[in-house]
Amino acid sequence: MDFKVLNNISYGMYVVATRDNDNNFGCFVNTVSQITAENPTIALSINKENYTNEMIKKIKRFSVSILSEKTNPSVIGTFGFFSSRDTDKFANVKYEYMQDLPILTDNMCGNLMCELLEVVDVETHDIFIARVIDTKSYNEQLTPMTYKYYHEVIKGKAPKTAPTYKNLNENIEENETVINDNSKIQFETEQINTTSAYKKYRCTICGHIYDEAVEKVRFCDLPDDWVCPICGVGKELFVEE
Amino acid sequence: MDFKVLNNISYGMYVVATRDNDNNFGCFVNTVSQITAENPTIALSINKENYTNEMIKKIKRFSVSILSEKTNPSVIGTFGFFSSRDTDKFANVKYEYMQDLPILTDNMCGNLMCELLEVVDVETHDIFIARVIDTKSYNEQLTPMTYKYYHEVIKGKAPKTAPTYKNLNENIEENETVINDNSKIQFETEQINTTSAYKKYRCTICGHIYDEAVEKVRFCDLPDDWVCPICGVGKELFVEE
Repeated sequence: MDFKVLNNISYGMYVVATRDNDNNFGCFVNTVSQITAENPTIALSINKENYTNEMIKKIKRFSVSILSEKTNPSVIGTFGFFSSRDTDKFANVKYEYMQDLPILTDNMCGNLMCELLEVVDVETHDIFIARVIDTKSYNEQLTPMTYKYYHEVIKGKAPKTAPTYKNLNENIEENETVINDNSKIQFETEQINTTSAYKKYRCTICGHIYDEAVEKVRFCDLPDDWVCPICGVGKELFVEE
Repeated sequence: MDFKVLNNISYGMYVVATRDNDNNFGCFVNTVSQITAENPTIALSINKENYTNEMIKKIKRFSVSILSEKTNPSVIGTFGFFSSRDTDKFANVKYEYMQDLPILTDNMCGNLMCELLEVVDVETHDIFIARVIDTKSYNEQLTPMTYKYYHEVIKGKAPKTAPTYKNLNENIEENETVINDNSKIQFETEQINTTSAYKKYRCTICGHIYDEAVEKVRFCDLPDDWVCPICGVGKELFVEE
């Protein structure tokens, strides 16, 4: 049975957030669907390991921010590859409050405010069914970011708690050793005048690919404070593809 | 509150089908999501008025066919705008059987065979949670059709039982009178040499737009047996936009 066929299911890109005791919590989600038309309800699923899951069950209200193709990919890295348990995910993103819950505002296609109606336990994940009680629209004509766009254009990978993790990340080893073989990179710099000498470097945290052929800057020539545009980690966590 | 922001949620295009007493049943669905990764489960929602909803509850197994951009749009018309109660939706589409249930085969991105685990009642709709017990992949590199592609490229509309019907079809009157004003069309034929004289005709069943400027054939010059490429109805059910 070939589970890769599941990769043909289409999704958008969303950040789900809530707030408790003056702390903001949020996580990246791709499975949002409108369920009913009148007085609309939506459904979305979140892994039980995510701290935001726990917080939504407690607070019973959450916001949904709909990412566009122009949203800074670091939003995906921050909300998809770190935990609200030990990171203030809102520290470096643009946000404001709507009915006292945080909503992201960096090139979003809109925000929803939702009231939890029901939690359905599905093994490793919960499906949250909720009423849309308020919305925020933006004037800009932005295109919603799809999961396909994220994988094919931004070259991102699925976090380990995502339902699609197994199908998508088949070729990534779980406990990959971080190799920082500068001697090899230096050797290649001598041949960089031919296209075939361009190398690719993959972020071991989020899977983002730095492609020298596209960026026109050698990876070894990037400044020391350069960080992964997806998840924000340093150069030392990249390995040659 | 602006519910149009809900149109920024991204979906794919699917036909869900089952079989009972030598009869095949199926309907169009846009809300399919993978929920868990190991031994995968999926969730999808179907309006309670759809006959296929009733049949899935009875049979407890169903197939999902993932439409591609190359799937004939008439599949969407047939499965989205007619009822399995009075139409054999499989009469004019390419299909075969997988574990004795029908699956569509016309330029599909794949098929899933699913076993129903749970039904969650959400007002007008049910969410079906199911285990993926078998899959079928195709070699072709087809792009999954998205709801956005359907609306923007194929110019399709949402069926009345769709969760997105209200947000998307705002300008369509529910009980629109069918006007077949040939005199008016004939008058326009005299001016067809200027682009501005091109007219658009809208299918009153599925909302498909026939655009003379794109097709380069006047609507009145189409053969009598021409049918709507989306839902298969005749010319008499089109009105001038």
